[in-house]
Parts: sequence; C-alpha cells; structure tokens
Amino acid sequence: MSIARVAIVGLGLIGGSIGLAVRDVLPDVATTGWDADADVRSRAAERDLAGEVCDTIADAVREADLVILCVPVGAMGYAAEAIAPHLQPGTIVSDVGSSKRSVGEALRAALPEAVVIPAHPVAGTENSGPEAGFAELFRHRWCIFTPGADAPQEAVDALAAFWEGLGAKVEIMDADHHDVVLAVTSHIPHLIAYTIVGTASDLEDVTRGEVIKYSAGGFRDFTRIAASNPTMWRDVFLANRDAVLEVLGRFTEDLSLLQRAIRNGDGDTLFDLFERTRTIRRSIIEQGQDDARPDFGRKDH
Amino acid sequence: MSIARVAIVGLGLIGGSIGLAVRDVLPDVATTGWDADADVRSRAAERDLAGEVCDTIADAVREADLVILCVPVGAMGYAAEAIAPHLQPGTIVSDVGSSKRSVGEALRAALPEAVVIPAHPVAGTENSGPEAGFAELFRHRWCIFTPGADAPQEAVDALAAFWEGLGAKVEIMDADHHDVVLAVTSHIPHLIAYTIVGTASDLEDVTRGEVIKYSAGGFRDFTRIAASNPTMWRDVFLANRDAVLEVLGRFTEDLSLLQRAIRNGDGDTLFDLFERTRTIRRSIIEQGQDDARPDFGRKDH
Repeated sequence: MSIARVAIVGLGLIGGSIGLAVRDVLPDVATTGWDADADVRSRAAERDLAGEVCDTIADAVREADLVILCVPVGAMGYAAEAIAPHLQPGTIVSDVGSSKRSVGEALRAALPEAVVIPAHPVAGTENSGPEAGFAELFRHRWCIFTPGADAPQEAVDALAAFWEGLGAKVEIMDADHHDVVLAVTSHIPHLIAYTIVGTASDLEDVTRGEVIKYSAGGFRDFTRIAASNPTMWRDVFLANRDAVLEVLGRFTEDLSLLQRAIRNGDGDTLFDLFERTRTIRRSIIEQGQDDARPDFGRKDH
Repeated sequence: MSIARVAIVGLGLIGGSIGLAVRDVLPDVATTGWDADADVRSRAAERDLAGEVCDTIADAVREADLVILCVPVGAMGYAAEAIAPHLQPGTIVSDVGSSKRSVGEALRAALPEAVVIPAHPVAGTENSGPEAGFAELFRHRWCIFTPGADAPQEAVDALAAFWEGLGAKVEIMDADHHDVVLAVTSHIPHLIAYTIVGTASDLEDVTRGEVIKYSAGGFRDFTRIAASNPTMWRDVFLANRDAVLEVLGRFTEDLSLLQRAIRNGDGDTLFDLFERTRTIRRSIIEQGQDDARPDFGRKDH
C-alpha cells in the first residue's frame, strides 16, 4: 500500500508546509488542497502550496488515498463531517492536531468507514497563514501517531513512509500519553508565555515601551511563542483540558516553592534547581532539537 | 574627562565581552582584568580578554580611570571592599549587575571616596565563563545607568561615551524603577523558565527523554534561559526580592484567570489574550530587539 494522492484540508503554516515538502521531496505524490477561507485558497494557489487548490472540499478529497486535516483542533469534527460523504472506501484520514484523544474521538465518530490515524508533527513556528509554510519544517522533527487498536498495520506503515519521506521521524504512542507529554513540552510553555506577555503589558509602573526596549533580558524568548495563532491555541487548551490542568497544577506548586525560597532568602534551593535545569538544555542540543549558538544565532541588528 | 584605562573585575561572559569589545572598537583604551578564580584568570589571558590579566585585584585597579565590577550581584559588596584601598581618587566605579538598588547601596557603602555609577547592560546569553564572551554582545542593546543625585555629570557622560563606544544605547533611570522593569523583562521570565524546566524533569508519567525529544513544541525556548549561570541568578532573585515577588504575584493572578477559563471552557478569554500578545512580539522585532526569522533562524539539523 502506498500513497499517491494526498488531500490537504487547511492551507496554513502546517498544511502549506506539507504541500511544499511533498513537491520538493516526493514529486511522484499528487496533492490537492482546500481551505475554508476563499482568500487563503487564492493565496495558497499563488504559492503553489498544492498541485491543485480546489474550490470545494469535495473536489479536494474525492480521489485521495490520504486526507490530512490541518485545521484548528476545535474544527476537526466539522472538517471530518464535511469530507465524510466524498471519500473513497479505505481512504486514510489523518490530521496534525496538537491534542490527540479529542481529535481521535471526533474523527472516528464522523468517519466510521475511513481508516483514521491521528497524527501530530511536533514542529511549527510562531507564524501562521498560507505565507508561513516552508518545505523543511518537518525535517528531523518527530511526528507522533496515535492509531487505534483497529488501524490496519499497512495503513500505519504507509502513513509513516509518507512522513519519513518529508524528513520526519515517526513515533507511535497512546493518545492519552501523547496529550500529557505535549501538555508539558508544548501547551504549558505556550500558556505561560501568553500569560507573562499579558502580565507585562498590563502593569501600571512599567510602560509597554519599556517592556519592549529591555526585552533582550529574557522576555523576548517568551514573546516568540506568544505570537502563535490564537485560534489554534484556544482550541488546544479547550481540547486538552485535563492534561493541561494537571501539568499546570504541578507547575504552580513548583513556582510557589521558589516564591517561598525567594521570600525567605533561601539561596540553596534556588541554586540547586538552576544547576539542575542546565543539563536538560544540554541534552536538547545534543539531540538536535535546538540550536547551540548563543541566542539561537539571532542576528546582529 | 575621558576614560583611558579600564579595569575589569570578573572575567566571565560580561567582563570578557567588555574586554573583547574594547580591544575591537576602542583601541586607545587600555584594559586590565582580574578574576577571583586563578583558573579563569589563565583562561582569560589565553583569550586576551584584557590587555593585561593581573595576579592581584590591587594591580588590576590601581591605575584605572574606570573599574567595572562584573561579578554576581551577591559578590558586589565584597568586590567593592577589595578594591577600596587601591583606587586613585576620583576613579569611576561601575558594575553590570541585574539589580540596581542593592548594588548601588553596596558600592556606595564600601566606596565613599569613589564616583559610583551603577550600570546594567541588558544583554547576555545562556553561556557563562571566560570562553563565553564576544565583542558584539552589547551592540544595539540598552545599558541602563542608575547614578545617584550626587554623581558628577562629567563622569556620567564619560561612562556613557564608553558604553556607546561599545555599541550600546544608554538610558538613565531611577534604581527602584530599574528593578521593577527588569523584574518584568528579565527576572520573572528566568524564574518561570527555571520552574517549568524543573517541573518537566520531575513528572512521573513523562520521561525526561520524552521531554527532550518533543521539546520543539515550545519547551525548548524556555530551556535556553534556564541554562544561564546559577550563581548569578540565585543572587539576582535574592537581591531584587521585593520587585520579583511583586511581579510574580501579578503573574500568578493572571495565570489563575487562564486556568479558570480553561476549566470552564471559556474560549473567548483565551482568544482575547492570545490575540493581544501578538502585537508585543511585533514591536520587539520592529525595534530590533529580536530576530524576525521563524525559530530565530535556528538552523536545520
């Protein structure tokens, strides 16, 4: 079983990057694309994000071996309903959403006849829209599949071959476990970044101009992810509520301990944590998940 | 009044970068250097971080027009005591510490005869030690002075000319205001980053290997600043306790509101904040305090 025709539903950062990557590295695979926003469709067509950008979702998915839903997780159920009447039997339906239990349930409920294999490429930037995508986005990044027990192995293998073709590394995981892992590595970091950027812009004693001027002291690192797509992230927090609240509870407990250490002048507690967190950074760089250059190689302005 | 001879006390990231920058762009200014750690002194001499790396702090500061203390803020008072007996009358003593009220008090107490002008270049990387410095670190970054009312204007002007020579932009500010601004733009971001990296490494359900593997989802942005020098940061939180606790209180209030919004499925509250924080990011990029390239131009591994 191999994938010759891929329909991309949703032509933003992730959908557009899939289209561009296929064109670059899997030239034998045909792509169709569709987006709910007519303006996005025409901008996507200008950038050739898909071999054919269709006017209707039906045209986009009708002959596909694989449909990838690249929409905010709150829209996955609607998108699945919309494609359901138009699929060939045996079509693989996958997605790129950042929460997997809720998305898997929504897809299976709407598509009882399709081969549903939820997936999540752990890759992205703070930019969004049809101009944001680029072909190399998934290279050396992980793509996590959370197939149900009934997913045919050959379909999982075909989807894995597709993502590996785009340069990703594939991992199979239980959906609930995925949701906790991503709450830690992605959702809570985004929530915290959004919060501190909001806090900083609401202070009376410190102007917004000062916050921006002196952001090189650390704050700017948070603003990058706090500039991510608001709709996508609203949906992620609502869809992955349980895991997010659980990890958030741990974080606030840990923060309270540090708050108390600062109040009490307990330098040893602070030092011990600060020393420990360095080793994590080293491992991330060793495993190629980040850039070792100081400031991520930020250029000199 | 101009500065012809600068003594750098403490030859880590900041002290070393000052030395390298002077050599590059102010070749008429002589530098001496000293560090409390003999091993650091010999590594600093190998990299030529100062024109002369001295064996004693007395030799380093004896003929200086300007002494810059580049040590953790908790060590500023001790360093000031150590240089006090060896200074020429009228020597300017400045520093690079991240909290200014406490440092200003410590320097003035120890150095009643010197011209004390506390300063803080808002620049840095997550790396530390004599190998970490580079000449361009301060270029296009702000350097905040918090001179007392009695500081002679000509000394302030001379110090400003020095920092501007290194490529920095100088701003004069009240020490207490500095401490609140930096609590927001630097100290709390570091504290939060340290906390979440610690939280992630302590979870039972998610292995440390998983945290590292999937860090590209956002977590890795926090690990950079959580790899900063532990001694320096312990001292910052203890020295700037009041402002840090004040801003931390605001942050945890705001975080509680978002936690409640997630629990109640209140998407509008989430969306409104996430939309608002984007504009801050845009301003930071427009003002040249960060890199606009997605992922800060992280290279493809």
